[in-house]
Amino acid sequence: MTATALRSEGAKHWVLVDCAEGTQHRLLRTRLSPVSLRAIFITHLHGDHCYGLPGLLASAGMLGRTEPMTIVGPPPLRGMIECIMQASQLTLPYPIVWVALEDLPHVEVLPDMRVRATALSHRIACYGYSFTEATVERRLDIGKLRAGGIPSGPAWGEIQQGRDVLLPDGRAVTAGDYLLAPRRPRKLIIAGDNDRPALLAQEAASADLLVHEATYTEEVLRKVGPGPQHSSAAMVARMAQEAGVPNLILTHFSPRYQDRAEDKDHGGAPGLDDIEREARAHYTGTLALARDLAGYALARDGSLRALP
Amino acid sequence: MTATALRSEGAKHWVLVDCAEGTQHRLLRTRLSPVSLRAIFITHLHGDHCYGLPGLLASAGMLGRTEPMTIVGPPPLRGMIECIMQASQLTLPYPIVWVALEDLPHVEVLPDMRVRATALSHRIACYGYSFTEATVERRLDIGKLRAGGIPSGPAWGEIQQGRDVLLPDGRAVTAGDYLLAPRRPRKLIIAGDNDRPALLAQEAASADLLVHEATYTEEVLRKVGPGPQHSSAAMVARMAQEAGVPNLILTHFSPRYQDRAEDKDHGGAPGLDDIEREARAHYTGTLALARDLAGYALARDGSLRALP
Repeated sequence: MTATALRSEGAKHWVLVDCAEGTQHRLLRTRLSPVSLRAIFITHLHGDHCYGLPGLLASAGMLGRTEPMTIVGPPPLRGMIECIMQASQLTLPYPIVWVALEDLPHVEVLPDMRVRATALSHRIACYGYSFTEATVERRLDIGKLRAGGIPSGPAWGEIQQGRDVLLPDGRAVTAGDYLLAPRRPRKLIIAGDNDRPALLAQEAASADLLVHEATYTEEVLRKVGPGPQHSSAAMVARMAQEAGVPNLILTHFSPRYQDRAEDKDHGGAPGLDDIEREARAHYTGTLALARDLAGYALARDGSLRALP
Repeated sequence: MTATALRSEGAKHWVLVDCAEGTQHRLLRTRLSPVSLRAIFITHLHGDHCYGLPGLLASAGMLGRTEPMTIVGPPPLRGMIECIMQASQLTLPYPIVWVALEDLPHVEVLPDMRVRATALSHRIACYGYSFTEATVERRLDIGKLRAGGIPSGPAWGEIQQGRDVLLPDGRAVTAGDYLLAPRRPRKLIIAGDNDRPALLAQEAASADLLVHEATYTEEVLRKVGPGPQHSSAAMVARMAQEAGVPNLILTHFSPRYQDRAEDKDHGGAPGLDDIEREARAHYTGTLALARDLAGYALARDGSLRALP
C-alpha cells in the first residue's frame, strides 16, 4: 500500500504522492495533518495507490479544513471521487482544485516546488512526478562585497534579497554583481508502478533522488512473467546507475519478501535483503529500501540521510 | 470507523456488516479471511461505514477467491462500487451478487440466517439488519422414546433428522411425535447510525442482542444538537430496556470520549465510562461497549459472553 509525503524543510504545508487505503490512519502516527496538506498527486488509479483518498478528503473536512486542496492525477480520478462523494453525500468545507495532468507544465500547483509528470509503462495509465525546488537561497559574495568597500548592514540584506541598492555615498550597486552562483535546485522523482525504468532516464539525469518500485527480484520476475508490469530491483538499479542519480529509494515490494530484520527465521522464503543485494550489485549510490513511516532528508548538498 | 463480523459457531463462512476504511487491514489481525466472507451488508453510505469496501473486494480477488460475494446495501452503493471498479480497472475473479434492500424479504441471502432490514433515521438512508437463525437443532424426547420402546440406534438418528422411521417390528414412527419443542432461534440486530432507536422497538422485542450506536452522552448530545442525527447512550438504553432486549452492545462513540482504561490521566475530558454509566442508569440487561477487535459469543440460551 503506497503513500509518500513530501515537505520542504521547515514548511507547514506538505504534499502527498498516492493515497492507499489506510493512509489517513497512518498519518495519525506522524506530525502531518490533513489540514495542512496542500496537494495530492496520484500516480495511477490502482486501488493500492488511491483507495484511501475519499476517506482522507472526508477527514480533512471533519477537521475543519477550509484551504483549497489541489489534486492531480489521471483523468478518471476526478469522476471516481465525484461519484463517491455523491453516493456517500460527502460535502467538504473546502474546495478541491482539480489539475489535469496535461496542464501540469502550465500551472504552478505548489509555491515551493515545480512539478512535472512523466508517463510510465503499467497496466493502467501511470505517471512519475518530479519535484524541483522553485527557488534556491541567494548567497552573498562576501569577499567581493568587502573588496568593493560595501559596508555590512542593511545594504547586504537588500542585496541578498536580490534588490539593487543606492549606497549613502551615492554609488548604485547591482545585486547580481555581489551574489555567488546559485546552487543547483534539488530535484526528486516519485514514480508510480512501472516496468520500463528507462522512461525516467532523462528526468533522472538531473535528479538528486529517485523513489521507484522494485516489486520483485529478477528471479521472481522471471517466474511471475511480464503480466503485472512491475520492475525488478536490478532493472531500476541499472537505470539509476546509468542516469547518475546519487540517491535511490526502492519501494512497493511484493508481500512475498519477508523483512528478515524483524523475522530472521523463515526458512528459504525470499527476504527484503534479497531485493537490497540485487540492487547493490548494479548501483553504487546511496540506496534505501522504503519502510512504513520511514523518513528521509535530502540535504542542500544533495545527500540523503534517514531521519530518526 | 465501523465494521462488524458475524459468524455462526463453527462455520467457515462469515458475514460483514459495514466496511469502513482499513477493515481489510484489521482482518489480518483476526482468523477471518476475505476468501470465506459470504456476504457484506452496508447500513448506509457514509464513508466511515463503507469506504473500505473496494479494497476488501480487491484483496479477496488477489487472494484467489472464486465464490460469489453477496452485497446488500442502499441503492447508490452498487453504482458507487461499479464506478470505482471501472476507474481503477478492478476486475474480480468472482461474481458479485447484488441484492436490493427491498428484495431482502424474498431472497435467502444466507443459508444459516434469515436477514431483514429496518429503515432508521439518519442524515442519509440508513438501515438496521436483523439476523435470525434459519434452523435450530432438533432435540430428541429421550424419555418418550424409551417409554415408547423405540430402541436407541439408527432410528434415533433418523428421528433427530426429522425423518419418519419404519421400525424392524413393523411400527411406523412419526418423527415429530418424539422431538422436544424447539428452542427459540437466536436473533440479533446490527443497526446503522440512527437518532430514533424506537424505530427498532418491534424488531428488538424478539431479539437476543442489539448492537447500536451511542455516539454521545445526553450532555454532549444537547451541546452538539440534533444535526448529526445520532443517539445518546440513554436513548438507546431506554429503548432496549422497554423492548426487553437481554443483551446490548453500544458502539460508534464520538472520538471525544477517551478510553480511561488506557489513559487514566486526561483531566476533565469525557470518557467511555461516562457512556457506560449513562447506559447502565437506564438498562438492566447485559451491557458491553464495543472495542476494536473485541468478540462476543451469543449462546443458545441467549446469554452473551466476551470472547478472550
